[in-house]
Amino acid sequence: MNPYPSLNPHPRILLGPGPSMVHPRVLSALSMPLVGHLDPDFLAIMNDVQALLRYIFQTENRVTIPVSGTGSAGMEASLCNFIEPGEAVLIAINGYFGIRLADMASRYGAEVDTLERPWGEVFDPDEIKMALRRRKYKLLALVHAETSTGALQPHIREIAAAAHDHGALLVLDTVSSLGGVPVEIDAWGVDVAYSGTQKCLSVPPGLAPLTVSERALAVLHSRSTPVANWYLDLSLVEKYWGSERTYHHTAPISMNYALREGLRLVAEEGLDARFRRHRENAVLLWEGLQAMGIEMFVPAEHRLPTLTTPLVPEGVDEAAVRRRLLNEYNIEIAGGFGPLKGKIWRIGLMGFSSRRENVALLLAALREILAS
Amino acid sequence: MNPYPSLNPHPRILLGPGPSMVHPRVLSALSMPLVGHLDPDFLAIMNDVQALLRYIFQTENRVTIPVSGTGSAGMEASLCNFIEPGEAVLIAINGYFGIRLADMASRYGAEVDTLERPWGEVFDPDEIKMALRRRKYKLLALVHAETSTGALQPHIREIAAAAHDHGALLVLDTVSSLGGVPVEIDAWGVDVAYSGTQKCLSVPPGLAPLTVSERALAVLHSRSTPVANWYLDLSLVEKYWGSERTYHHTAPISMNYALREGLRLVAEEGLDARFRRHRENAVLLWEGLQAMGIEMFVPAEHRLPTLTTPLVPEGVDEAAVRRRLLNEYNIEIAGGFGPLKGKIWRIGLMGFSSRRENVALLLAALREILAS
Repeated sequence: MNPYPSLNPHPRILLGPGPSMVHPRVLSALSMPLVGHLDPDFLAIMNDVQALLRYIFQTENRVTIPVSGTGSAGMEASLCNFIEPGEAVLIAINGYFGIRLADMASRYGAEVDTLERPWGEVFDPDEIKMALRRRKYKLLALVHAETSTGALQPHIREIAAAAHDHGALLVLDTVSSLGGVPVEIDAWGVDVAYSGTQKCLSVPPGLAPLTVSERALAVLHSRSTPVANWYLDLSLVEKYWGSERTYHHTAPISMNYALREGLRLVAEEGLDARFRRHRENAVLLWEGLQAMGIEMFVPAEHRLPTLTTPLVPEGVDEAAVRRRLLNEYNIEIAGGFGPLKGKIWRIGLMGFSSRRENVALLLAALREILAS
Repeated sequence: MNPYPSLNPHPRILLGPGPSMVHPRVLSALSMPLVGHLDPDFLAIMNDVQALLRYIFQTENRVTIPVSGTGSAGMEASLCNFIEPGEAVLIAINGYFGIRLADMASRYGAEVDTLERPWGEVFDPDEIKMALRRRKYKLLALVHAETSTGALQPHIREIAAAAHDHGALLVLDTVSSLGGVPVEIDAWGVDVAYSGTQKCLSVPPGLAPLTVSERALAVLHSRSTPVANWYLDLSLVEKYWGSERTYHHTAPISMNYALREGLRLVAEEGLDARFRRHRENAVLLWEGLQAMGIEMFVPAEHRLPTLTTPLVPEGVDEAAVRRRLLNEYNIEIAGGFGPLKGKIWRIGLMGFSSRRENVALLLAALREILAS
């Protein structure tokens, strides 16, 4: 029995909201033969990965690790460890991933209050402060870069300070920002932040970078109930990644090889140069789209450089355009969903996908498709 | 900043309890460029992976998928979807992974009753039937192949029938058996079974094969409370892997490439030939060890061919032997833990690691080390 042919995927140019393209050096690291998850070689790799993640997150947090799942597992780890049944949490929602935060928090027995803004807008710190005054919250969670809308939430430092003034932890979703725009965990005072490997880090999906402040760890360690999730229980996971090396689960070896190589590439480029590259290529894209008469959904001051969301021009079948990009040019971009379905495209220029040649090609292909 | 050298892990011969060695074709699949998680190419890969997993599990179950985490995530998915707070579950414990099942189930609010046997022994179906008569259980969970002891639980068909007679689901841990010894989900009547990729399937760790019967799905779909775990909620996950293709989380693309290739290798060899190979190499190992005066911890009739647990000879420092195997011969084997710490070794001959040359080398290395 083997009717299954050899793997032969199309050579896609990945310009959607992730996965982004993966550098050949990372693909090569993926294909290295394996060592065991308690091998001295792997323990050294774990140390490197943690040190490099601290650089990317701009933090000294001891517990800075890749969760052994995709970004969503990182999101869940960021909530389940710090919530006990009956506790109140505040979730600021301005897109799909805010909704998901609220859904997850409720599954852990939290009383979830939400603060909502239309998709595409961002929050003013004052409205968050006002909400924090209304009730005592265990944590405030919000999204730094909303992958469903393309908006970048500013004023994280001010929001973190407000959370702390009211005795709440700040949990921040950095899935589409980490490694593409500045994320300064310690300077901003963020307590818990998570991301995914397949966005601006340009590593395949499968791991979720996570960093946890000492303040948040103190909350974890003083729980009166066990974490209602074994796989993501950081009180167990931190012992495997810490000096004890106590076995918890078998870490995804090859994915950690890949993450280490992806992080080395970030370190070689340097964060500042990397942020500049992401911004420059995004500006090129915005200018090129505008020259074609296409406007952006998010105003320039809150626009994410890593994920651009142009408005679909009047009378254009957006799904047909995406199909032609894929079938005729091997280019992947995404559509909007929820209230933005049919209204926007989502174009990612993340990590190794953020290259001038990709911008030029996409603009050329769009021009050809929209003209025909 | 880049003080981190290129990745250069030692060329290990992996004869521990997993990860096992990975076939070059699987490593090669891992390094293929990525497509998106909703790309038609990837949807076809998902279909192939599901069909191949059905073959490996010997099942027609529609919901037969790789969970996007390691084997432990598969274990947790097998419990959290079918347990509601306050329900009684029965866990049969004869080693570490039974204990973990009980820990996980309790985190989901189950009233956990346990049936215990000393590590290394197996259960008689009659004692399980007796326990099932004492109380009404939502599910019975037990381990087919205990990775902590090397014992293989027989009579699964009889145990499944008893569970069904008493209105309980049967959840089976097949982490160290799937692809190495017969696992017949439909013929035995198992409702939920999970495994890991890094054992007898010889794919890197990071995915957890899972299969769910229609009876178990009916239990899931009639829950009165939401699954207390978003990432592993099968009512959401099944829609991404099913015909709806509703986005849930971004599947680990590269790991699914690898799994597909690993499963193709199993299908090419054929399950029967594969089981025969595992048994033949295990017998060679047992005979070789016995010729050196080393006895096995588990009696022959319940001995797992994929993981052998020899007793450490009197006066031998078992950790020193393992260190020498690793440092002088690049061979990884594992020690015992819990009540078996210092008493046994754990030698895996799983998947691509189960080769005659590996048995010969390990025996030769052990002979040299024990003689010096």
